[in-house]
Amino acid sequence: VKVAIVLFDKVTALDALGPYAVLAFTPGTEISFVAEKVGPITDDNGALTMQATRSFDDFTDPDVVIVPGGFITRRMVVTGHPAIDWLKKVQPQSTWMASVCTGALLMASAGLLDGMRATTHWAAYEDLEALGAIPEHERVIVHRDKGIVTGAGVSAGIDMTLRLVMEMLDDQTAQRVQLGMEYDPQPPFDCGSPLKAPPEMVATMRAGMAESKRKLLADLNPVTS
Amino acid sequence: VKVAIVLFDKVTALDALGPYAVLAFTPGTEISFVAEKVGPITDDNGALTMQATRSFDDFTDPDVVIVPGGFITRRMVVTGHPAIDWLKKVQPQSTWMASVCTGALLMASAGLLDGMRATTHWAAYEDLEALGAIPEHERVIVHRDKGIVTGAGVSAGIDMTLRLVMEMLDDQTAQRVQLGMEYDPQPPFDCGSPLKAPPEMVATMRAGMAESKRKLLADLNPVTS
Repeated sequence: VKVAIVLFDKVTALDALGPYAVLAFTPGTEISFVAEKVGPITDDNGALTMQATRSFDDFTDPDVVIVPGGFITRRMVVTGHPAIDWLKKVQPQSTWMASVCTGALLMASAGLLDGMRATTHWAAYEDLEALGAIPEHERVIVHRDKGIVTGAGVSAGIDMTLRLVMEMLDDQTAQRVQLGMEYDPQPPFDCGSPLKAPPEMVATMRAGMAESKRKLLADLNPVTS
Repeated sequence: VKVAIVLFDKVTALDALGPYAVLAFTPGTEISFVAEKVGPITDDNGALTMQATRSFDDFTDPDVVIVPGGFITRRMVVTGHPAIDWLKKVQPQSTWMASVCTGALLMASAGLLDGMRATTHWAAYEDLEALGAIPEHERVIVHRDKGIVTGAGVSAGIDMTLRLVMEMLDDQTAQRVQLGMEYDPQPPFDCGSPLKAPPEMVATMRAGMAESKRKLLADLNPVTS
């Protein structure tokens, strides 16, 4: 199974590397990190640089595509980005296209989620809806008939990819991977979802993200800046 | 807070990058990836290459040190490795030293877990005990008085680092990070621990790892090879 994990400048690292961890433990996978050009890609924190091993032009026949997100995706869908064109191009012959977090915005922008139920980071439901998908508060949404999977924010990529392994292979393989990576999560708080966290914390974070988005897009639209 | 995440050839990526994801969302952190030399480090799958941004010689005053694991640690503790010497050297002036998975073997080999309760990947309890620690089946073990934290296998680095943020800063910051990364885990099976997985699956995996370890160490001990 040829897996392509998409990278781009300012990607959120765990969006890409949670799925990578699951697939790296899955037998029979051959994983590439694919970007506009082969070479270094730095994440949204700025401290992590990863190597893209194949380019969009070179890798056109992946079986499975993982699309991570990051705050920058809000800008990528407005300005256009080679990753979006590549998703359109490879989708017809791929088996599975899977997004994590705001990677769903890139998938939607490529027209792959039109009129479909999909999930993304909880703070990006409106952005996803604006691109033609039907956002739902779910951890993972699988469209088996279309070969499309979407996962919620950042850490959901691990759950999403275990589901993908169940679909691609079988339950027992997914169980072995889960045991191998000792995925028996024990988060310190039950606050990882906007439905469970203190409402004022959700509101503050939402307002902060809206302001960050405004700044991110300001120079694209001088009227509102 | 100056954070050092240790890297070495054949590291298990998520051991390092789960903690990174949490700390990258934590305000006030300045994260470096530290290795024997500045430059590329490839993980145990072989598909991911990350950049070490500082060297052990250069970075000697981290506040927080994250020590990931990987199967190769069994060999590193037998042959010796610059990472182990560096852990010994920086421990006295650091605030927190934290391991994920078999990173605990490197911490123990540096003498930092002598006679202390500690956790590691479930298949490495005997290896940890042989290095002088007291292995316990826990997700995270915190020794506040010593500034030492150990986490269980691979994915436990996320839980471990959220606990570390609670210790370093406060509960509310950890909650904000958890909400930001939408860490509301929903694994597909309840089999991520050897106490929960089918016993024959645990036994098969344990036997496979013992055989892999034998091969990994074979050329170091010609009598048993």
